[in-house]
Amino acid sequence: MRKIEHIGIAVTDLEKSNALFSALFNVDGPYKQEEVESEFVKTSFFRSGNNKIELVQGLNDDNAISKFITKRGEGLHHIAFDVADIKKEMARLKDEGFILLNEEPKIGADNKLVCFVHPKSANGVLIELCQEIPA
Amino acid sequence: MRKIEHIGIAVTDLEKSNALFSALFNVDGPYKQEEVESEFVKTSFFRSGNNKIELVQGLNDDNAISKFITKRGEGLHHIAFDVADIKKEMARLKDEGFILLNEEPKIGADNKLVCFVHPKSANGVLIELCQEIPA
Repeated sequence: MRKIEHIGIAVTDLEKSNALFSALFNVDGPYKQEEVESEFVKTSFFRSGNNKIELVQGLNDDNAISKFITKRGEGLHHIAFDVADIKKEMARLKDEGFILLNEEPKIGADNKLVCFVHPKSANGVLIELCQEIPA
Repeated sequence: MRKIEHIGIAVTDLEKSNALFSALFNVDGPYKQEEVESEFVKTSFFRSGNNKIELVQGLNDDNAISKFITKRGEGLHHIAFDVADIKKEMARLKDEGFILLNEEPKIGADNKLVCFVHPKSANGVLIELCQEIPA
Protein backbone atom coordinates (compact mmCIF):
# COMPACT_ATOMS: atom_id res chain seq x y z
CA MET A 1 0.00 0.00 0.00
CA ARG A 2 2.62 2.45 -1.20
CA LYS A 3 0.55 5.43 -2.32
CA ILE A 4 -2.78 6.53 -3.76
CA GLU A 5 -2.56 5.49 -7.40
CA HIS A 6 -5.81 7.14 -8.47
CA ILE A 7 -9.22 8.31 -7.41
CA GLY A 8 -12.11 6.97 -9.49
CA ILE A 9 -15.08 9.22 -10.22
CA ALA A 10 -18.31 7.85 -11.71
CA VAL A 11 -19.75 10.02 -14.50
CA THR A 12 -22.68 9.73 -16.90
CA ASP A 13 -21.15 11.59 -19.85
CA LEU A 14 -17.40 11.25 -20.21
CA GLU A 15 -17.04 13.99 -22.84
CA LYS A 16 -18.90 16.48 -20.69
CA SER A 17 -16.92 15.49 -17.60
CA ASN A 18 -13.65 15.71 -19.50
CA ALA A 19 -14.48 19.36 -20.19
CA LEU A 20 -15.42 19.96 -16.55
CA PHE A 21 -12.24 18.43 -15.13
CA SER A 22 -10.11 20.17 -17.75
CA ALA A 23 -11.52 23.44 -16.43
CA LEU A 24 -10.94 22.31 -12.84
CA PHE A 25 -7.31 21.40 -13.45
CA ASN A 26 -6.71 24.18 -15.97
CA VAL A 27 -5.48 21.76 -18.64
CA ASP A 28 -6.43 21.12 -22.27
CA GLY A 29 -7.90 17.67 -21.62
CA PRO A 30 -7.27 14.20 -20.19
CA TYR A 31 -3.85 12.78 -21.03
CA LYS A 32 -5.31 9.37 -21.85
CA GLN A 33 -8.62 7.68 -22.63
CA GLU A 34 -9.25 3.97 -22.60
CA GLU A 35 -12.10 1.47 -22.83
CA VAL A 36 -12.07 -1.47 -20.44
CA GLU A 37 -14.16 -3.92 -22.42
CA SER A 38 -14.28 -6.57 -19.70
CA GLU A 39 -15.91 -4.06 -17.31
CA PHE A 40 -18.10 -2.34 -19.94
CA VAL A 41 -16.71 1.09 -19.07
CA LYS A 42 -14.73 3.83 -20.71
CA THR A 43 -12.26 5.92 -18.78
CA SER A 44 -10.18 9.07 -19.01
CA PHE A 45 -7.22 10.11 -16.92
CA PHE A 46 -5.99 13.42 -15.52
CA ARG A 47 -2.82 13.95 -13.51
CA SER A 48 -2.80 15.64 -10.11
CA GLY A 49 0.67 15.75 -8.59
CA ASN A 50 1.89 12.16 -8.61
CA ASN A 51 -1.68 10.80 -8.50
CA LYS A 52 -4.27 10.30 -11.20
CA ILE A 53 -7.95 11.11 -11.39
CA GLU A 54 -9.84 8.49 -13.38
CA LEU A 55 -13.25 9.39 -14.77
CA VAL A 56 -15.36 6.31 -15.52
CA GLN A 57 -18.53 6.04 -17.58
CA GLY A 58 -20.53 2.85 -17.99
CA LEU A 59 -21.15 1.61 -21.55
CA ASN A 60 -24.41 -0.22 -20.82
CA ASP A 61 -26.96 -0.38 -17.99
CA ASP A 62 -25.49 -3.44 -16.32
CA ASN A 63 -22.01 -2.44 -15.16
CA ALA A 64 -20.75 -1.35 -11.75
CA ILE A 65 -20.57 2.34 -12.67
CA SER A 66 -24.05 2.66 -14.16
CA LYS A 67 -25.53 0.79 -11.18
CA PHE A 68 -23.64 3.07 -8.76
CA ILE A 69 -24.94 6.19 -10.52
CA THR A 70 -28.52 4.88 -10.55
CA LYS A 71 -28.29 4.33 -6.80
CA ARG A 72 -26.18 7.30 -5.64
CA GLY A 73 -25.67 9.68 -8.54
CA GLU A 74 -22.39 10.80 -10.02
CA GLY A 75 -19.43 11.32 -7.70
CA LEU A 76 -16.47 9.77 -5.92
CA HIS A 77 -16.52 6.04 -6.65
CA HIS A 78 -13.31 4.39 -5.46
CA ILE A 79 -9.81 4.97 -4.19
CA ALA A 80 -6.99 2.92 -5.65
CA PHE A 81 -3.75 2.17 -3.88
CA ASP A 82 -0.54 1.17 -5.60
CA VAL A 83 0.91 -2.06 -4.21
CA ALA A 84 4.19 -3.79 -4.95
CA ASP A 85 2.85 -7.34 -4.72
CA ILE A 86 -0.92 -7.57 -5.14
CA LYS A 87 -1.23 -11.24 -4.17
CA LYS A 88 0.68 -10.67 -0.94
CA GLU A 89 -1.42 -7.59 -0.10
CA MET A 90 -4.66 -9.43 -0.91
CA ALA A 91 -3.64 -12.21 1.50
CA ARG A 92 -2.71 -9.73 4.22
CA LEU A 93 -6.00 -7.82 3.93
CA LYS A 94 -8.03 -11.03 3.90
CA ASP A 95 -6.27 -12.05 7.13
CA GLU A 96 -7.20 -8.67 8.59
CA GLY A 97 -10.89 -9.36 7.85
CA PHE A 98 -11.36 -7.30 4.71
CA ILE A 99 -13.66 -8.85 2.10
CA LEU A 100 -12.11 -9.14 -1.36
CA LEU A 101 -14.42 -8.83 -4.36
CA ASN A 102 -12.19 -11.01 -6.51
CA GLU A 103 -10.12 -13.89 -5.20
CA GLU A 104 -7.56 -13.58 -8.00
CA PRO A 105 -6.13 -10.33 -9.40
CA LYS A 106 -7.87 -9.30 -12.61
CA ILE A 107 -6.79 -7.04 -15.46
CA GLY A 108 -8.05 -3.47 -15.06
CA ALA A 109 -7.53 -0.16 -16.85
CA ASP A 110 -4.12 1.41 -17.34
CA ASN A 111 -2.09 -1.83 -17.56
CA LYS A 112 -2.81 -2.88 -13.99
CA LEU A 113 -3.59 -6.03 -12.07
CA VAL A 114 -6.42 -5.08 -9.74
CA CYS A 115 -8.44 -6.35 -6.81
CA PHE A 116 -11.38 -4.60 -5.16
CA VAL A 117 -12.18 -4.63 -1.45
CA HIS A 118 -15.88 -4.68 -0.54
CA PRO A 119 -17.03 -1.31 0.84
CA LYS A 120 -19.02 -3.02 3.59
CA SER A 121 -15.73 -4.20 5.09
CA ALA A 122 -14.04 -0.83 4.62
CA ASN A 123 -16.17 1.96 6.07
CA GLY A 124 -18.29 2.26 2.94
CA VAL A 125 -15.22 2.94 0.80
CA LEU A 126 -14.67 0.90 -2.36
CA ILE A 127 -10.93 0.25 -2.31
CA GLU A 128 -8.92 -0.95 -5.29
CA LEU A 129 -5.48 -2.47 -5.03
CA CYS A 130 -3.45 -2.14 -8.17
CA GLN A 131 -0.10 -3.35 -9.33
CA GLU A 132 1.54 -2.34 -12.59
CA ILE A 133 1.75 -5.31 -14.96
CA PRO A 134 5.45 -5.93 -15.59
CA ALA A 135 6.53 -5.43 -19.22
CA MET B 1 -4.28 22.86 -7.99
CA ARG B 2 -0.86 21.35 -7.39
CA LYS B 3 -1.72 17.92 -5.97
CA ILE B 4 -4.24 15.92 -3.99
CA GLU B 5 -3.70 17.06 -0.42
CA HIS B 6 -6.05 14.56 1.16
CA ILE B 7 -9.11 12.39 0.70
CA GLY B 8 -11.83 12.89 3.29
CA ILE B 9 -13.81 9.88 4.49
CA ALA B 10 -16.99 10.24 6.57
CA VAL B 11 -17.18 7.84 9.51
CA THR B 12 -19.58 7.29 12.39
CA ASP B 13 -17.07 6.06 14.98
CA LEU B 14 -13.58 7.52 14.68
CA GLU B 15 -11.95 5.07 17.11
CA LYS B 16 -13.35 2.07 15.26
CA SER B 17 -12.33 3.53 11.89
CA ASN B 18 -8.86 4.35 13.19
CA ALA B 19 -8.43 0.64 13.90
CA LEU B 20 -9.77 -0.31 10.48
CA PHE B 21 -7.51 2.07 8.56
CA SER B 22 -4.54 1.11 10.71
CA ALA B 23 -5.11 -2.47 9.55
CA LEU B 24 -5.56 -1.32 5.96
CA PHE B 25 -2.33 0.66 5.93
CA ASN B 26 -0.48 -1.75 8.22
CA VAL B 27 0.44 1.00 10.70
CA ASP B 28 0.01 1.43 14.44
CA GLY B 29 -2.51 4.27 14.17
CA PRO B 30 -3.21 7.72 12.76
CA TYR B 31 -0.27 10.13 13.00
CA LYS B 32 -2.53 12.97 14.15
CA GLN B 33 -5.98 13.62 15.57
CA GLU B 34 -7.71 16.97 15.74
CA GLU B 35 -11.07 18.51 16.54
CA VAL B 36 -12.34 21.26 14.26
CA GLU B 37 -14.70 23.04 16.64
CA SER B 38 -16.07 25.45 14.05
CA GLU B 39 -17.29 22.48 11.97
CA PHE B 40 -18.36 20.28 14.89
CA VAL B 41 -16.18 17.40 13.70
CA LYS B 42 -13.21 15.40 14.90
CA THR B 43 -10.62 14.08 12.49
CA SER B 44 -7.69 11.72 12.26
CA PHE B 45 -4.97 11.54 9.64
CA PHE B 46 -3.08 8.73 7.95
CA ARG B 47 -0.31 9.10 5.39
CA SER B 48 -0.41 7.40 2.01
CA GLY B 49 2.60 8.27 -0.12
CA ASN B 50 2.68 12.05 -0.21
CA ASN B 51 -1.08 12.31 0.34
CA LYS B 52 -3.19 12.09 3.47
CA ILE B 53 -6.36 10.21 4.30
CA GLU B 54 -8.57 12.21 6.68
CA LEU B 55 -11.23 10.38 8.64
CA VAL B 56 -14.00 12.70 9.83
CA GLN B 57 -16.68 12.08 12.44
CA GLY B 58 -19.44 14.55 13.28
CA LEU B 59 -19.77 15.66 16.91
CA ASN B 60 -23.49 16.39 16.83
CA ASP B 61 -26.43 15.69 14.49
CA ASP B 62 -26.26 18.99 12.67
CA ASN B 63 -22.92 19.05 10.90
CA ALA B 64 -22.00 18.30 7.28
CA ILE B 65 -20.57 14.86 8.05
CA SER B 66 -23.48 13.55 10.13
CA LYS B 67 -25.94 14.81 7.51
CA PHE B 68 -23.93 13.14 4.75
CA ILE B 69 -23.91 9.82 6.62
CA THR B 70 -27.64 10.00 7.32
CA LYS B 71 -28.26 10.49 3.61
CA ARG B 72 -25.61 8.25 2.02
CA GLY B 73 -23.90 6.20 4.70
CA GLU B 74 -20.23 6.17 5.57
CA GLY B 75 -17.73 6.51 2.74
CA LEU B 76 -15.72 8.81 0.49
CA HIS B 77 -16.75 12.37 1.32
CA HIS B 78 -14.45 14.87 -0.37
CA ILE B 79 -11.23 15.32 -2.28
CA ALA B 80 -8.94 18.17 -1.28
CA PHE B 81 -6.43 19.80 -3.59
CA ASP B 82 -3.42 21.75 -2.44
CA VAL B 83 -3.29 25.22 -3.98
CA ALA B 84 -0.58 27.87 -3.81
CA ASP B 85 -2.94 30.86 -3.70
CA ILE B 86 -6.46 29.98 -2.58
CA LYS B 87 -8.02 33.35 -3.40
CA LYS B 88 -6.65 33.28 -6.93
CA GLU B 89 -7.83 29.70 -7.47
CA MET B 90 -11.28 30.51 -6.03
CA ALA B 91 -11.59 33.40 -8.51
CA ARG B 92 -10.47 31.23 -11.42
CA LEU B 93 -12.93 28.43 -10.60
CA LYS B 94 -15.78 30.90 -10.13
CA ASP B 95 -15.01 32.30 -13.58
CA GLU B 96 -15.14 28.75 -14.94
CA GLY B 97 -18.66 28.33 -13.54
CA PHE B 98 -17.94 26.32 -10.41
CA ILE B 99 -20.09 27.20 -7.39
CA LEU B 100 -18.11 28.04 -4.26
CA LEU B 101 -19.65 27.13 -0.90
CA ASN B 102 -17.80 29.92 0.88
CA GLU B 103 -16.95 33.25 -0.70
CA GLU B 104 -13.96 33.79 1.58
CA PRO B 105 -11.40 31.18 2.62
CA LYS B 106 -12.15 29.74 6.05
CA ILE B 107 -9.96 27.99 8.59
CA GLY B 108 -10.13 24.19 8.31
CA ALA B 109 -8.33 21.25 9.89
CA ASP B 110 -4.58 20.77 9.74
CA ASN B 111 -3.61 24.47 9.67
CA LYS B 112 -5.22 25.18 6.32
CA LEU B 113 -7.25 27.90 4.65
CA VAL B 114 -10.03 26.08 2.85
CA CYS B 115 -12.84 26.62 0.38
CA PHE B 116 -15.38 24.03 -0.77
CA VAL B 117 -16.81 23.71 -4.27
CA HIS B 118 -20.46 22.62 -4.52
CA PRO B 119 -20.78 19.03 -5.75
CA LYS B 120 -23.64 19.98 -8.06
CA SER B 121 -21.19 22.06 -10.09
CA ALA B 122 -18.50 19.35 -10.02
CA ASN B 123 -19.93 16.01 -11.12
CA GLY B 124 -21.27 15.18 -7.68
CA VAL B 125 -17.81 15.52 -6.13
CA LEU B 126 -17.33 17.71 -3.07
CA ILE B 127 -14.02 19.45 -3.78
CA GLU B 128 -11.97 21.27 -1.18
CA LEU B 129 -9.24 23.73 -2.02
CA CYS B 130 -6.66 24.11 0.70
CA GLN B 131 -3.69 26.31 1.27
CA GLU B 132 -1.26 25.93 4.15
CA ILE B 133 -1.53 28.89 6.53
CA PRO B 134 1.86 30.64 6.47
CA ALA B 135 3.71 30.56 9.80
